[in-house]
Order: sequence, then C-alpha cells, then structure tokens
Amino acid sequence: MIGMVEESDYCVLQAELAQVQREVDDMFDALLPSPQDSRAPLVDAMRYAAIGGGKRLRPLLLMSTAELYGVDRDCALRAACAVEAIHVYSLIHDDLPCMDDDDLRRGKPTVHVQFGEATAVLAGDSLHALAFEILADPDTSADPFVRVELLATLGKASGMDGMAGGQMMDMMADAEEYDLHAITRLQQLKTGALLAASVEMGAIMGHVPPAGRVHLRNYARDIGLAFQIADDLLDYEGDEAKAGKALRKDEVQGKQTFVTLMGARKAREQARALVDQAIGHLAGHGGDAKMLKAIARYIVERDR
Amino acid sequence: MIGMVEESDYCVLQAELAQVQREVDDMFDALLPSPQDSRAPLVDAMRYAAIGGGKRLRPLLLMSTAELYGVDRDCALRAACAVEAIHVYSLIHDDLPCMDDDDLRRGKPTVHVQFGEATAVLAGDSLHALAFEILADPDTSADPFVRVELLATLGKASGMDGMAGGQMMDMMADAEEYDLHAITRLQQLKTGALLAASVEMGAIMGHVPPAGRVHLRNYARDIGLAFQIADDLLDYEGDEAKAGKALRKDEVQGKQTFVTLMGARKAREQARALVDQAIGHLAGHGGDAKMLKAIARYIVERDR
Repeated sequence: MIGMVEESDYCVLQAELAQVQREVDDMFDALLPSPQDSRAPLVDAMRYAAIGGGKRLRPLLLMSTAELYGVDRDCALRAACAVEAIHVYSLIHDDLPCMDDDDLRRGKPTVHVQFGEATAVLAGDSLHALAFEILADPDTSADPFVRVELLATLGKASGMDGMAGGQMMDMMADAEEYDLHAITRLQQLKTGALLAASVEMGAIMGHVPPAGRVHLRNYARDIGLAFQIADDLLDYEGDEAKAGKALRKDEVQGKQTFVTLMGARKAREQARALVDQAIGHLAGHGGDAKMLKAIARYIVERDR
Repeated sequence: MIGMVEESDYCVLQAELAQVQREVDDMFDALLPSPQDSRAPLVDAMRYAAIGGGKRLRPLLLMSTAELYGVDRDCALRAACAVEAIHVYSLIHDDLPCMDDDDLRRGKPTVHVQFGEATAVLAGDSLHALAFEILADPDTSADPFVRVELLATLGKASGMDGMAGGQMMDMMADAEEYDLHAITRLQQLKTGALLAASVEMGAIMGHVPPAGRVHLRNYARDIGLAFQIADDLLDYEGDEAKAGKALRKDEVQGKQTFVTLMGARKAREQARALVDQAIGHLAGHGGDAKMLKAIARYIVERDR
C-alpha cells in the first residue's frame, strides 16, 4: 500500500482500466472505417496503431476526472480518444528511423516497419487531425465554449510548447549536457504536458473554472514527473518482453535520465514521494477521487 | 482577358497578394518567437518554412471571401495563417526522403536538408498543432460557434478524408493505374480540400449559413481542379528556376497526371473552362466578388 490508497482501490483501477481499454478500442473502430479506395493502407496503419494496444492511461485520467464532475461518460470517452489519438500519433512519429528508430512498440512491429515510412508519417498526421476533428464535433460537448477550450488545451499541450517541443529537446540530448533541471523541463514538455491536458480536459468538460482546477494541475504535475521517473526506472531495470519495446537505449546512447542523474534508489524514493504529494492534492475531494488516487499509485507500480 | 475579369482587376490582385504575403509573414513572425532553450532548432525550422516564401494563395482566398461578408481583417488574417500553417506543414512532410524526397522548395533547400529529418518531422507536427491553437483562440473570433466550425472544417480538410488521404493516394500512384476519375478524386483530396476549406472558412467567419455557401463551394471546387490542372501544366512545361522546385518528376516516375491523361492542349482548355465556370458561380455577388474572380483567373495564369 502506498500513501492513502487501499489495495481494493487498486483492483477497481485494474477493472476500470480494462473497461476503458475496451471502450477506446470500440470508439477508434467506429471512427476509422476502412475506405474502399487506395487510401486503405493509411487507415489500416491508423487502426493498427490506435486499436488493441496501449495502457490507455491518458483516457483513464481524463474520464476519471470528468466523472468527478458528473460529465456524461460517452462525451468524456470521445475527448479521451482525442487525447489518445495525439499520443498514438506521437508514438508513430517518435519511432521513425530519423527519430528514435524503434522497431518494436506494444509488442508488435512499429508502424513504419509494418507499413513503410511514408504511410507512417501520414498515419501520424491523420491521427493528429482526427484528434481535433473529434473535439470540434458537437457530440463531444453541446457547449461550444467547452469544445474550443478542449481544443486550445490539447493544441498547446501537443505543439512546440508541449509534446513536440519536448521531443525536440530529447533529440538534442546528445549534443547538450542536460542537468536535473533541464531533464525535468524536457519531461514536463514531452510527457507531462499531455498527461496534464488529460486531467485539465476532464475538468473543462465538468465546467470547472480555471481557479477551481489548481489542485488538479498540481496533481497532474506531480504524477507526470512520477510517471517519467518510473519510466526511467522501468527502462533501467525492466524486462523487454513485458515492456513490449526495446529498453536501455538511453544508457547505450549515453543520455542523461532521472536514474543516471539521481541513482536508482533516490529516483524510486522521489517517485513515491511525488505520488504521495499528488494524492495529497486531492484531499478536498474526499472519497470521490479514489480512482485518481489509484492512478497515481499505479503510475509508479505498473511494472509489477 | 479571361471570362469576365478585367486586366485592371488582375493588377489589383497582384497588389493584394503582395499585401497578404507581408501580413502573413508578420503574423507568423509574431506567433513564432524563438525560445531560449534547446527547442530553438525546432522553432528556427518552423520560421524557415513559414516565413518569407510561398504565394499565400490560401490566405488570399480566405481573406477575400471573408471580406465579401465584412469580416474584421485581423481576425480573417489569423484564420488565414492557420490554413497556411497546415499547408506549410504538409509541404515539409511531403518533401521528406520517405515521401517525395525533394531537396528544393520555394527556391531554397527543403527543411530536412537544412535542419535534418527529425527536426523536419517535428516542425511539421508543431505547425499542425499551431494551426488548431490559432483557431481555438478567441482573437480569431469572439463567437465560439464560429471557432468550432472553423476547427471542424480545417480538421476534416487536412486529415484522412482530405489532404493526408490525397497524399496517401499519391504515394500509391506507382502501384495503381489511375484513370481520370481517380486522378480527379486524388487531387480533390490532396489540394482541393484545403483550397475549398479556405473559401468555406471565410464564409463561416461571415456567419453565412451552410445553405448560403453552395455557390462558394461550387466556385472552390472548380478553381481547385483548375489549380491542379495548371500545376500539372506548369510541371510539364515550366521553368525549374522560376518554380523554385524540381519539375517533371511525375513524368520520370511514370505517374499519371491531367496532362498525361488528357494531353496538354485539352488540359489547358479544361482549366480555362473551369475558371469561367468558377467565375460564373459568383454572378450573384456582382462587382463585390472581383477579387475571387481575379484569383480564379490567376490560378491558371500564374506561370506568366
């Protein structure tokens, strides 16, 4: 048991995660019908990347936050699929030979290995556009103020001041000697921004004004950092077969990570402290935020 | 003189195009401040691609349509920059070695030649996100209904059912034997969708209901097709130095184009007939639509 989260809540999280995984798969299946023309390989590649894999952590974060505020589950699921479409597109592009050059993702060949590089670039681009199409649709929220705020939040989190900017910093890691401050900044952009956007978007759908989201932002910042430290620990200590991708590439390339900069023991302590701190930010919700608390714990325990 | 467009209107168009080019450059300059961290190459690449080049035909189309309905020019310029950001991102990705593998664009080295492939992929992705960020911002329109409709229109025009889908069909052209019907469909997606979105978005900003946009859609469809036929003619007959990019690649690769399928003379006649037809759709606007009429003419005459 970590912090204030019970073992039973952790079981509920596992069941909820499995449920969200099914719902996200079904939604992508509906959103991506195979066209009867020569665009078929493009949509096949989008389906290959988007359906039947991934933990769906970002959808779970968004839907759990939305549930706190009584948002309709189908609407939240659509916004969750928009965030996940951005996440999936970024994985496709990051795996390209000119980027991280990975052959394996979620235990299967990466999109460019399976479909070729050109199709991989276009499948990423098309999932990127799909995310914004989903959010602009009235089915996601009848309130256009909510839709534009969702769109603005996801746009900022995924562009040069978010995920893509973080990936750029990551590509520069060979040339620059990053210290703990720079690595923290890099990870806040590369992975933290989209995790934070998932929580923020759940609150936006719940009509929570910006001032009422401060504790959620603090929660999201802490779990984002804990997530990345846990990721570095998994990369350092983990099992490639279980992870479904190549590990210890940072070590081989001599890149700095939280583990190389802090040591494994200190990194593990830091991740757990961040999780406790994240859970503390949710105190005002009492028992209602059980799922978000369980997610915080799951984030550092997901290797087991 | 072609159709009902006077020579003097053509001069007005040239002046307006130069004006829009300056305004779009200034807006991108303001939207893309250089960051003081290791993301600098990313933003340098975005600025390199987005500023100081390109005809800015899509911005001119959007702004000229918006002007018909009295839309504030600064607001229309922002939406115009969103469309152009999508166009520029697509050029960066289409030029990649795994796609069309072009070294020259707008008379200078392509982004991946200048900044490397990884930065080129990320610069495209970041311009893609920027487009949606611009449209979601209240500065583009105070009316959230307008903003979400702009976002939905641009999302659809740029994704798998628009530009990216058309590029996929283009990548399959070696394997498939396209006839005139398939080439028309390919071009409607690859270039027609974004040109049509430019006109549509101008009308959306002017609060024109969908039923009132039918004549503009017909205009946009005709100039989109005329544009691509003219492009194929330029590629077949043009001057590489003037075009600022490699020409006659389709011929070398044995790809079908409007020129190979129809012959140059028939293609030229068809482009001019489409321009006359496009101008005809604007008859109801009387003298107000002079600029849109001049653009239609410019589209087939831009090699002179």
